[in-house]
Amino acid sequence: MYLDHAATTPLRPEARDAWVRAAEELGNASSIHGPGQSARRLLEDARERLAAVAGCDPIEVVFTSGGTEASNLAIKGLWWARADDRDAVVLPDGEHHATLDAVEWLASHEGAAVRSVPLDAVGRIPVGAFAEALHGAVLATALVANNEIGTVNDAAGLAAAADAAGVPLHLDAVAAFGHVPVDFTGWRADAAPATGLVAMSLSAHKIGGPVGVGALIVSRTATIAPLVHGGGQQRALRAGTQDVAGAVAFAVAAELAEAERDAEAGRLTALRERLVAGIRSSVLGAELLGDPADRVPGNAHVLFPGARGETLLFLLDQAGVAVSTGSACQAGVPEPSHVVLALGRSADEAREVLRLTLGRTSTDADVDALLAALPSAVERARAASAR
Amino acid sequence: MYLDHAATTPLRPEARDAWVRAAEELGNASSIHGPGQSARRLLEDARERLAAVAGCDPIEVVFTSGGTEASNLAIKGLWWARADDRDAVVLPDGEHHATLDAVEWLASHEGAAVRSVPLDAVGRIPVGAFAEALHGAVLATALVANNEIGTVNDAAGLAAAADAAGVPLHLDAVAAFGHVPVDFTGWRADAAPATGLVAMSLSAHKIGGPVGVGALIVSRTATIAPLVHGGGQQRALRAGTQDVAGAVAFAVAAELAEAERDAEAGRLTALRERLVAGIRSSVLGAELLGDPADRVPGNAHVLFPGARGETLLFLLDQAGVAVSTGSACQAGVPEPSHVVLALGRSADEAREVLRLTLGRTSTDADVDALLAALPSAVERARAASAR
Repeated sequence: MYLDHAATTPLRPEARDAWVRAAEELGNASSIHGPGQSARRLLEDARERLAAVAGCDPIEVVFTSGGTEASNLAIKGLWWARADDRDAVVLPDGEHHATLDAVEWLASHEGAAVRSVPLDAVGRIPVGAFAEALHGAVLATALVANNEIGTVNDAAGLAAAADAAGVPLHLDAVAAFGHVPVDFTGWRADAAPATGLVAMSLSAHKIGGPVGVGALIVSRTATIAPLVHGGGQQRALRAGTQDVAGAVAFAVAAELAEAERDAEAGRLTALRERLVAGIRSSVLGAELLGDPADRVPGNAHVLFPGARGETLLFLLDQAGVAVSTGSACQAGVPEPSHVVLALGRSADEAREVLRLTLGRTSTDADVDALLAALPSAVERARAASAR
Repeated sequence: MYLDHAATTPLRPEARDAWVRAAEELGNASSIHGPGQSARRLLEDARERLAAVAGCDPIEVVFTSGGTEASNLAIKGLWWARADDRDAVVLPDGEHHATLDAVEWLASHEGAAVRSVPLDAVGRIPVGAFAEALHGAVLATALVANNEIGTVNDAAGLAAAADAAGVPLHLDAVAAFGHVPVDFTGWRADAAPATGLVAMSLSAHKIGGPVGVGALIVSRTATIAPLVHGGGQQRALRAGTQDVAGAVAFAVAAELAEAERDAEAGRLTALRERLVAGIRSSVLGAELLGDPADRVPGNAHVLFPGARGETLLFLLDQAGVAVSTGSACQAGVPEPSHVVLALGRSADEAREVLRLTLGRTSTDADVDALLAALPSAVERARAASAR
């Protein structure tokens, strides 16, 4: 029983088959002979299809090795390409480590001054506070949907604030794409030149595409320095032989996720609500964190006072139920969640959470298994903490 | 008929099947629950198997999205991690654009001073001149085998020179790995601490693995800053959800390439010699560039005086024979080859070359097709140039 779809979700059979078909085509998409041009056509077709789902022009799609590389490219690329000596980078609290750690490196290594923005009690970035932090900043970054607690931000509002302030904005849409509406062009102001929303990160494996594939949507008007230099591929923004099979599989997964999105949102919301209601009725004090309604449909993020998250994870895993204490990227290290801390919770509370995430293959049986195993796991975890 | 195996070579069926099997396993290798740990075991097994082929310890394998990212990580990472104000970067002439463009960015953006090293007439880096350039340098980079002309460098000699000079060295082994002997540990000095050979780039798709997968071998004693920050994966040197399927497929391809290497070297050398002899006997003035003997077995790099390479490429492509004018990464732009220029050839000559590369699926029929189509192609190309 797998309730960790936000860490990674099963590869869609259609994406797998598309990957195999494309990978068996011989040719480097940068070669100008026939096989190269065939590979190039597959790649550009994938670029067009992904662009249609993300709401951007095909030329704005820069394929990367995943969401983390995309976010690093956006943040460091905007920093290196800055035209003046502004040094403030706007980083809301509770961001994903891919942006958080990239910004912290800019601070420690490149002289950036970090401006944080506190979250509200449900983990949303307040547009007003974000707008205030933008004045005179060199760049800003923000999550579309929080990867841990699932709260969905007002992406259009954040983008409008960046446009008004003349600051380039990167949105990390990895946890949102395919799950809630994502529309790069729709979120941009009418005549946004080189500022406002200029870059947006996406990942394939969160929506049933392969791991190791992602994209940064880069506005045609943005000035971004490459992270990886070399053969001049992809508007010279991202060098390296282009992964045609990965791009094709990503496009297939994105189209399927988008086609199913409304129906899946309804199904997963109902499943999640049953999960949360079941937890509340069986575990005293359990509390849903994040926005109760405006969240990624499959995300339930629950505080279990007095029970350590990693103990719960271990006990549930023994019962055959896979869950997470937070972002998988950090899950090897049992630290308090910086996202939960950003909700104004204590360090103890930030260790007493589970992220339960449902996805395409989730059924009532997964919810039942979690609900069956959870009460005794919480009891044992609380007893272990009390010792 | 495909004579461009150096651009990319067919995916091995065993690597494809291994990719599919691993990609269908559910679990993020950073997750601590059961499915995550299963994915982790697959990943670590792949790391061990690749390490055995590359001659390094498993912990020294940092998987990347390919050779270009690996080279960028090595060069920029060594630069950012430098402990003092040394600013000279040693860059031999004729390097791959992945290292060349990374170093040029360090020069234009980060204040690096580039020290070039002229190649000899067959395109080899002279160890003596390389050693002289190293004095007081912050880092050096060099190709193990030249990706265009195929000449194999004295990697052990270059590494020993770097060790003697106390300079960290990155070797780009992308064109060499799987084709000629590559031995990371064997090339290191006995007691090399943080200098000498510390990093080596590899790519999967040049040996029958998937595109979008590579590795940087990073000595345990090296100090390298990450290019991509985030979740702390892979010794915190390369963040992002780890591409388990890609790593497994890379390991499978590497093992197969290594197992076949001796036999394939003999077979491809014979095929290449027949190809070169046939060209010489049918095209007046055709000249093999690079070292006639000590080269990547499947590589024939030929100068056709008076015939433009891109015209030849176009005419041969029309005849159903795929060839290259040089590195595929640059093939979209018909510029004179910087590698051929580094041999002391003229700008005209640097436009009058073809890179013909054989690989695992090459047969006599490929050679026959090229030899049948070439004479009239050269004749027409020469006529076009003379107009």
